[in-house]
Amino acid sequence: MGDSTTTIQHLKDEVNQFADERDWEQFHTPKNLCMSIAIEAAELMEHFQWTRAEEVDNFDDAKKLQVQEELADVVAYCIAFANTMNIDIADAFKHKMKRNREKYPAEEFKGIYGHDDPARDA
Amino acid sequence: MGDSTTTIQHLKDEVNQFADERDWEQFHTPKNLCMSIAIEAAELMEHFQWTRAEEVDNFDDAKKLQVQEELADVVAYCIAFANTMNIDIADAFKHKMKRNREKYPAEEFKGIYGHDDPARDA
Amino acid sequence: MGDSTTTIQHLKDEVNQFADERDWEQFHTPKNLCMSIAIEAAELMEHFQWTRAEEVDNFDDAKKLQVQEELADVVAYCIAFANTMNIDIADAFKHKMKRNREKYPAEEFKGIYGHDDPARDA
Amino acid sequence: MGDSTTTIQHLKDEVNQFADERDWEQFHTPKNLCMSIAIEAAELMEHFQWTRAEEVDNFDDAKKLQVQEELADVVAYCIAFANTMNIDIADAFKHKMKRNREKYPAEEFKGIYGHDDPARDA
Repeated sequence: MGDSTTTIQHLKDEVNQFADERDWEQFHTPKNLCMSIAIEAAELMEHFQWTRAEEVDNFDDAKKLQVQEELADVVAYCIAFANTMNIDIADAFKHKMKRNREKYPAEEFKGIYGHDDPARDA
Repeated sequence: MGDSTTTIQHLKDEVNQFADERDWEQFHTPKNLCMSIAIEAAELMEHFQWTRAEEVDNFDDAKKLQVQEELADVVAYCIAFANTMNIDIADAFKHKMKRNREKYPAEEFKGIYGHDDPARDA
Repeated sequence: MGDSTTTIQHLKDEVNQFADERDWEQFHTPKNLCMSIAIEAAELMEHFQWTRAEEVDNFDDAKKLQVQEELADVVAYCIAFANTMNIDIADAFKHKMKRNREKYPAEEFKGIYGHDDPARDA
Repeated sequence: MGDSTTTIQHLKDEVNQFADERDWEQFHTPKNLCMSIAIEAAELMEHFQWTRAEEVDNFDDAKKLQVQEELADVVAYCIAFANTMNIDIADAFKHKMKRNREKYPAEEFKGIYGHDDPARDA
């Protein structure tokens, strides 16, 4: 596998099969799944909350594995959410990146982070 | 594009190019990016917070598009995080799903949700 | 103690003393503490994520205690955040409730939830 | 008002009255309210996500007011949650701080943050 050869549909199929074998679609409402995404995102944050940048550089393999697993959890619930809501992730992503490029033209925002001010997005 | 033909690496390349053109890698620390994932996950939740299941079924196209865009934001930051931490998402996902299958055998957990009790994962 | 006789300042003093005795103020930056609030809020959500309303009504004492502890964690970090940022919570709360009353007049929003549409706050 | 003279019960009464006048108790299920806490916590994070420590020190009054309002939102939903679940916040807080003092003895954890490793709490 690996990211170079794995399609998003492949992940979707795996998540679908996993839920189907356990009869878990009944729990996979959009409301529950977006809560899951947020909960797993918080668990990912726990690994970085009290760390300084240089400590992250020195994460050992065990720590890196924990981080990978938390990211995988977030991704898995994103996939489950997309399955339930019939969202094509690649299309949604493409559409959003197009809007981001319009909102943050490369020349204007060179080295200036677009999200500095939350009021901006309002 | 579409999920059937789009690889994860393709999304990674797009996010990399977007950050590179704007010189934004400097802001893309793991700590900042996992905060971004959590923030976007919360924005996704906002769309479902006060809705009942039947209302979700009746989301109109404008609402569906908003939901897709929020999911795309979560995914984009997951991709950026993976880029920064050099995580192969497909491998991490495969590894985690294997662990999930061991933790929740299909026969034992048929129709019984494995995460009922947060203490379980402790 | 109890909510009827406990002032917010009392909670602030307790949190201050706890941090001071451990020399933990150095970790209590606003950025770290708002991450803590979000993380504890997610842990609180874990207890309700897969539950239906009627199950919540039947939480046993052990479960209720877990929920209380998670809420206490969220509150404790809110207090720590207010200590660090020199925020008077009672004043901030009073100010915000005044704005909420203006934004959601009682007659207009009787039985109609004001936050239905996240776009509304934008 | 102010934190020195405001009891937690006072905040509870205000939130109760606000919900009652709008007939909003029907929306204030524990599940919905813990989602609200998490969403508001994420909005608070937005203000600190891309900032460095020294920038926080230089927040102007308008920015500080926004931060106060976001914190007030988190607190208000914590209060609403406690109202719905009949939780005495002062008692829950007192109980949790006692456990924290046992878990992190002041001498042992002097200058060493107790939450370094998320695995610790597992």
